[in-house]
Amino acid sequence: MSEYTDRQQDGTTVGIVKKQFFTFAQPPDRLDLESGASLGPVSLAYETCGTLNGDKSNVILILHALTGDSHVAGYYSQQDAKPGWWEIMVGPGKGIDTDRYFVICSNIIGSCCGSTGPSSTDPDTGRPYGTNFPLITISDMVKAQKALMDHLEIDSLLSVIGGSVGGMQVLEWCTRYPEMVKSAVPLATTTRHSALAIAFNEVARQSIMADPNWEGGHYYGGHKPDMGLAIARMIGHITYLSDESMRTKFGRRLQNRSELSFEFGAEFEVESYLQYQGNKFIERFDANSFLYVTKAADYFDLAEQHGGGSLVNAFSRCKAKFLVASYTSDWLYPTYQSKEMVKAMKKNDLDVSFCEIDAQWGHDAFLLPDSRLENLLRGFLKGVYYDG
Amino acid sequence: MSEYTDRQQDGTTVGIVKKQFFTFAQPPDRLDLESGASLGPVSLAYETCGTLNGDKSNVILILHALTGDSHVAGYYSQQDAKPGWWEIMVGPGKGIDTDRYFVICSNIIGSCCGSTGPSSTDPDTGRPYGTNFPLITISDMVKAQKALMDHLEIDSLLSVIGGSVGGMQVLEWCTRYPEMVKSAVPLATTTRHSALAIAFNEVARQSIMADPNWEGGHYYGGHKPDMGLAIARMIGHITYLSDESMRTKFGRRLQNRSELSFEFGAEFEVESYLQYQGNKFIERFDANSFLYVTKAADYFDLAEQHGGGSLVNAFSRCKAKFLVASYTSDWLYPTYQSKEMVKAMKKNDLDVSFCEIDAQWGHDAFLLPDSRLENLLRGFLKGVYYDG
Repeated sequence: MSEYTDRQQDGTTVGIVKKQFFTFAQPPDRLDLESGASLGPVSLAYETCGTLNGDKSNVILILHALTGDSHVAGYYSQQDAKPGWWEIMVGPGKGIDTDRYFVICSNIIGSCCGSTGPSSTDPDTGRPYGTNFPLITISDMVKAQKALMDHLEIDSLLSVIGGSVGGMQVLEWCTRYPEMVKSAVPLATTTRHSALAIAFNEVARQSIMADPNWEGGHYYGGHKPDMGLAIARMIGHITYLSDESMRTKFGRRLQNRSELSFEFGAEFEVESYLQYQGNKFIERFDANSFLYVTKAADYFDLAEQHGGGSLVNAFSRCKAKFLVASYTSDWLYPTYQSKEMVKAMKKNDLDVSFCEIDAQWGHDAFLLPDSRLENLLRGFLKGVYYDG
Repeated sequence: MSEYTDRQQDGTTVGIVKKQFFTFAQPPDRLDLESGASLGPVSLAYETCGTLNGDKSNVILILHALTGDSHVAGYYSQQDAKPGWWEIMVGPGKGIDTDRYFVICSNIIGSCCGSTGPSSTDPDTGRPYGTNFPLITISDMVKAQKALMDHLEIDSLLSVIGGSVGGMQVLEWCTRYPEMVKSAVPLATTTRHSALAIAFNEVARQSIMADPNWEGGHYYGGHKPDMGLAIARMIGHITYLSDESMRTKFGRRLQNRSELSFEFGAEFEVESYLQYQGNKFIERFDANSFLYVTKAADYFDLAEQHGGGSLVNAFSRCKAKFLVASYTSDWLYPTYQSKEMVKAMKKNDLDVSFCEIDAQWGHDAFLLPDSRLENLLRGFLKGVYYDG
């Protein structure tokens, strides 16, 4: 707690934030989805940090990754021990400076952290949707976010920023609503999943669906498919790290012992770390949401969906100034994938800065403290804000 | 069948082979294991190809990988459609030329393809061991193989050759029985698993143990933990491929359709491929064996077990001439791990050839047709055979 109070006092956190909700039902009372199905009413949980300026020219929309939420920075209460997921980057004087910018972050649809998803109540039955929830896409998530912007009467975004699946939403924003987006920062992301990324997601999904508690997705009110979800998370978690970071962090160290046990069960530190991550995850995330959001990520294919198969075409309507960043040790969305998007942007004469950050931490590096990314973001945002 | 007959006729296969068994019970009727436990009696399934020469100087011991077996080459019968697992490399005139060498391959203990493992009958209870089977190590596997060599009255090996977990056995042979091993070929292997490799194995094991049919390992006679084992195999299978090979082989192609289905289930080709691999695997492999053999691989640490923590020390008693090969796209046992072992061998003034083969197929590349590896092996073996 003293650590939290200190942070409050020294003014480096946005302090207390509040989760808000916006519920919409577009005519005819539904959100039309890419699949052809429709969904409604739709609720979005969102949070804001900083102050909207008079001409509404300082809005930054932050898009969260697979299992993130709207709680991007600050604390819900004085008693709250844990800040938002990008506290290191969002706050007074930080890379995304809330003394200067008005930050919005909303939970994606399909998720389970306040926005409508498979664990929400299906108005047709009065029970949770479960797998009656329609398949959604990155595009559907972004269309819902657009409705939130309309509700907040924001028609221009200084920047859209996000890593991983959040970066996919960034790319979707730029191509779907090009007039609205002044600048964009896709971090550690891709314009489409490789077969490798799809493969890992599919095995993780299989693991959930193989759990007998999954019950075809209608497990609410009963036992949850915790074992399957924990294994799915462990698989995912490995892909967020790197050979080097795991070597540095764990190596072959044993957990609480000096010799091999010659028994099954967590014995190497890396094993108990993964089990801990799996068990922590099941407390905060819904198994069906994991299925829906990973599927949306697998479906995302910017070239197919916006360019008739051509990535160059997909970016042809964009007007945003871009900052693209990848990490050397990210093997889930390797740098070559960022380079492909940068190349396609440049062929459209877009203003693009690209940086491959040398870091050993793998895909998750964008979530870790790193002054290089912070400085890159700070400089980029100043440029687009003051030049604007 | 015509394909098979052709191969028989043109003399490029060793033809019909027979699985043989050797059962031993060392005094006092047990095999002493590295864990301190003991096991007995122990049966080993083995096969041979080629002809043992007069002075027994042409023996090549091939060590199989995680889920392999003794059936290294040839066919069990005229009706047999599928040859042994390394048919491409082992046969008349091939890289490992059975016109010249006498090849032996035995199933490792802990496995389920004829040698004693968790699905074997525990003589104390008359029922399958299940998880009463003791934890075994690479060293225990090799000690059992040594008993087979004694039984066959072979006291010198022209070469020991193996990839992956087979390569670990190669390294163990060279350090445990240095006087017996004239040359050695560790392929696509490592002297110890990285945290990344342990992590994947542990998640695969968790997947099996989370299957309610696993029943603490005592599932024989009832439903098998097929779902868990299939997922474990899928996880493993991804690590045997590479980003590039999966991109080439599958990309984002859809299975039997031109548009997204917006349903869960295998839809991308890579998804149905993995499910096929998982389902094929459960027909031939035992879930407990998967647990035991992956654990043995995780435990393997040549420096710790033979060098007091030093890899240089571990190789100090070796006398073998080495051919070490790694693959550029193998991210499970990356080239830097082979280079570490080569460096330690050279510090002992051992005769080492090292080759990093440029191939996109990932870890499994050593099992695929490749004239480069075949030529390397042919040349290396000729050198040690005729110079000897």
